Amino acid sequence: MAILFRSTPAATARWQPLLAELMPEHEFRFWPEVGDPANIEYAMVWQPPPGLLASLPSLRLICGLGAGIDHLLRDPDLPRHIPITRLVDPYMTDAMSEYVALSVLRLHRQDLDYLAQQRAQSWEEREQKNACERPVGILGFGTLGQDAGRKLKALGFPVAGWSRTAKEVAGFVTYAGGDGLDALLARSEILVCLLPLTTATEGILNAGLFARLPRGAALVNAGRGGHLVEADLIPALDSGQLSGAVLDVFREEPLPKGHPFWSHPRIIVTPHIAAETHPPTAAAIIGDAIRRFAKGEPVANLVDLATGY
Amino acid sequence: MAILFRSTPAATARWQPLLAELMPEHEFRFWPEVGDPANIEYAMVWQPPPGLLASLPSLRLICGLGAGIDHLLRDPDLPRHIPITRLVDPYMTDAMSEYVALSVLRLHRQDLDYLAQQRAQSWEEREQKNACERPVGILGFGTLGQDAGRKLKALGFPVAGWSRTAKEVAGFVTYAGGDGLDALLARSEILVCLLPLTTATEGILNAGLFARLPRGAALVNAGRGGHLVEADLIPALDSGQLSGAVLDVFREEPLPKGHPFWSHPRIIVTPHIAAETHPPTAAAIIGDAIRRFAKGEPVANLVDLATGY
Repeated sequence: MAILFRSTPAATARWQPLLAELMPEHEFRFWPEVGDPANIEYAMVWQPPPGLLASLPSLRLICGLGAGIDHLLRDPDLPRHIPITRLVDPYMTDAMSEYVALSVLRLHRQDLDYLAQQRAQSWEEREQKNACERPVGILGFGTLGQDAGRKLKALGFPVAGWSRTAKEVAGFVTYAGGDGLDALLARSEILVCLLPLTTATEGILNAGLFARLPRGAALVNAGRGGHLVEADLIPALDSGQLSGAVLDVFREEPLPKGHPFWSHPRIIVTPHIAAETHPPTAAAIIGDAIRRFAKGEPVANLVDLATGY
Repeated sequence: MAILFRSTPAATARWQPLLAELMPEHEFRFWPEVGDPANIEYAMVWQPPPGLLASLPSLRLICGLGAGIDHLLRDPDLPRHIPITRLVDPYMTDAMSEYVALSVLRLHRQDLDYLAQQRAQSWEEREQKNACERPVGILGFGTLGQDAGRKLKALGFPVAGWSRTAKEVAGFVTYAGGDGLDALLARSEILVCLLPLTTATEGILNAGLFARLPRGAALVNAGRGGHLVEADLIPALDSGQLSGAVLDVFREEPLPKGHPFWSHPRIIVTPHIAAETHPPTAAAIIGDAIRRFAKGEPVANLVDLATGY
């Protein structure tokens, strides 16, 4: 019985020593050194090459190394009968909430304007309201969205969350479905996307959605690049319908040199760093999932392929 | 009986209608229209011209329009026998905590580096730890410091506070005095200055203090420009002893064009906007103080001139 590990070379180098330490009972194979595929029962994978998982005849469980599983669904040969877990790691959740809090605060406090003023050596106070007067809406109100919501609330922001299916979350106004989305958008001066990327959410951040936000609203996309219709963003910024955007994810990553997002004065670009996988905590979580699965116990964060998360 | 109001012309324009509405029982004089000085009993002032307060023979109470009173102490003729209140307004406290949270998060999350990478269109993930691994120290642990501390703690940062006199604050490690300062500095990867400006704190942010921080620590100064020995900052940044600084206050404001802080790549400059006075809430607070004072009741936030706050 062996576990196949596949991620980027840099990530693999960070994981390798931890896996030996935290899961000493298992034999690990590090892609591309697959060895005999017949005795691989588990796969820990990020962006596996198409066909890799289908080539493992004894595979019993796929452990995705990210909060989303869109990196797995890109594989047309993904063996859909095999259970998949996605990675829900409180350390990554905290990191994501830090990124969201920083991004929301910077948009709220007119940081793009103050950065421009600094470049121009211009000393000019701008009118500023407090967080309690700046409603924030969060698209995707699961583990990540609720944690970010709690921290934004501690900073004083009124926070509402939207999710596909109705949820009651103590201390928050929540919305669901199509009508709920309208209601959430109408009240959100800052909109944060933390959705999973599915066929239902692909391209959700588009001109039509921007038009339903209050004029001058701002956007944070820390979900996936596929949520944003990239061609719609700059016109919305240039017209003033949106006042700014903070983007951590893109249709093509790395964001190509010369892409207009890099140099737009109302866009902050970061290189998909909102919540990096953290091997010391993630290895323990996945190790536990594999142990439970092997014993036939319930496993957390199993993916429903019908919804895509 | 009348109240003299004196602030900047822009601030006066914002205050004037609110005062008539919230304190209709009083006659207001708006500097420089002082009228008969003999019937002015109260003064609401920001940076009063030297000698103004001494020229009011019936003055009974000075209400400073800021959290600090250094703007009053600049007046060599300040009538020191007259009680002074400083402005402690929860709305301004919240605004300050927003500024501190934004500044600490941006330093923690390597925002200066990511902004530079965006300008260079360079996609490069940097190693990042979580807030729980980034101890923050707050110099000045009164109303402002404790509120900022609570919000930083909600974001995950381990927070310690330092004040002149020993304080016990539930949920925080606190330090006081000279030995306490050493201990706080040794553990603070991000240092936030929210001190009052007094003879004891003038120039406290200097090369000697920077050297006692962990190498690569970062600084937020939202206290007063006089806390920082400006000539010491850039050498500390250029040597790597400090990794970044966010400054809202300066020795000379507006910060003069050509000042090296404007263009230094490791410094964020904002134009003294961390916590602007907010007339709707402040007028109610000062109105209440004047009513209590007139009735001989205890008044909050009276200044002790011996300590300077």
